[in-house]
Amino acid sequence: MRTRPTILKTELLAASRYFQIEQLHLCFGNGQQRIYERLRGSDYQSVLIVAMPDPEHILLVREYAVGVEEHVLGLPKGGVEFGETALQAANRELSEEVGLRAERLTDLGQLSLAPGHLCHQCQVVLAEQLRPCLALGDEPEPIELVPVAWGELPRLVAKGELNESRALAALFLAQCAIAVGRG
Amino acid sequence: MRTRPTILKTELLAASRYFQIEQLHLCFGNGQQRIYERLRGSDYQSVLIVAMPDPEHILLVREYAVGVEEHVLGLPKGGVEFGETALQAANRELSEEVGLRAERLTDLGQLSLAPGHLCHQCQVVLAEQLRPCLALGDEPEPIELVPVAWGELPRLVAKGELNESRALAALFLAQCAIAVGRG
Repeated sequence: MRTRPTILKTELLAASRYFQIEQLHLCFGNGQQRIYERLRGSDYQSVLIVAMPDPEHILLVREYAVGVEEHVLGLPKGGVEFGETALQAANRELSEEVGLRAERLTDLGQLSLAPGHLCHQCQVVLAEQLRPCLALGDEPEPIELVPVAWGELPRLVAKGELNESRALAALFLAQCAIAVGRG
Repeated sequence: MRTRPTILKTELLAASRYFQIEQLHLCFGNGQQRIYERLRGSDYQSVLIVAMPDPEHILLVREYAVGVEEHVLGLPKGGVEFGETALQAANRELSEEVGLRAERLTDLGQLSLAPGHLCHQCQVVLAEQLRPCLALGDEPEPIELVPVAWGELPRLVAKGELNESRALAALFLAQCAIAVGRG
C-alpha cells in the first residue's frame, strides 16, 4: 500500500450553487510537492439505475444534457433526497422518469467519474421485476424511454450513439455482477 | 429528432486555472424554462489509453487521485498537447507513464463523463504491438503498472477495486470494437 500524499493546504477558490472549486497543496511520500485543483459537488448523492424489464433487455433513456448541448442516451438517474436510501431514490427516480417501480433492487456499488479531478461518486442500482407506477417528477420535458437488448449494445457503442462513461460503466458493473452471481 | 432547447443566456459564474462554472438559462420546445449549471474544463483535450501487451491482457495503472484522496486503479491517460493528434498524445503518455510505445494505435471514439453537468469529453485509443520506450513525464511519483487479464476484470469490478467510470467505459468500448471488428 502506497503512502498517501499529505494535504498541506486546501483552499476554496470559487463556489456556485452546485459546484465548488478547491485547490490543494500536496506533498508526496518522496517529498515532491504539487498543487492540484478538484471539484466538489455540494454533498450531492446520486443513483444510476440499470433497469431490466426482463433478463435480455435494459431501459435506456434519452434526455437533454446541457454539458454537450444535445439529447443523449443514458440510464435513468437522479439525486438521493434527504432521508432516502439509494435504493429508495432509485425507485422514486424510476417512477418519475419512466413510470416504473422495481420489486427487486440490488446495490451494485459505487462509481467514480474522473477521480483525479472530481470528488463525486454515484451509486449504481440494479432494478428488476418492474411494474407500472407513474409519479410526477421535475423534468422540463418527457424523457424518452429506449429499451435495448444487451446484445445491441456493442453496435450502439461502436456507432457512438451511447458514449456516456457513467452509463457504460454501470452496464459493465451490472454485467460483472450477473457474471459473478451478484457477489 | 427532438428540438434542442434554446439557450437564452450563458453566464460565467466562476473560473479558476482549470475550471469554469457556467450558468445557462434554457427554454425547452414546450415552453418550459430552466436554469442549469455546467462545468467547462479550459479547452483541455484528453486521451484514455487501452493498452494491450497481448490479446488477453490490458495495462491498468494505479496512481493517486486527489478527488477521492486515494491511489486508484485506472487506465493510462493524459492531455493532448498543442500540435499533437490524440494518437500522438496516446503514445507520448504511454511512454511517460508506463515506458512503452505502441506500433498500432486505433481511435475508438469519444466518451462523455456526466454530460448533464460537464462539457468535457475524452478520446479513447486502443494501443497494441507495444515495445519499450521510456520518456520522462511530470508525474510526482512513479505510476504503478498493473497488467490484468480481461477475464479478471469482473472480479476486480465486483470487489470495488476498479470503479472509475471512464476506465470501465473505455474497456467496454474496446470490447465492443473488438467484438464488431473495430468498426
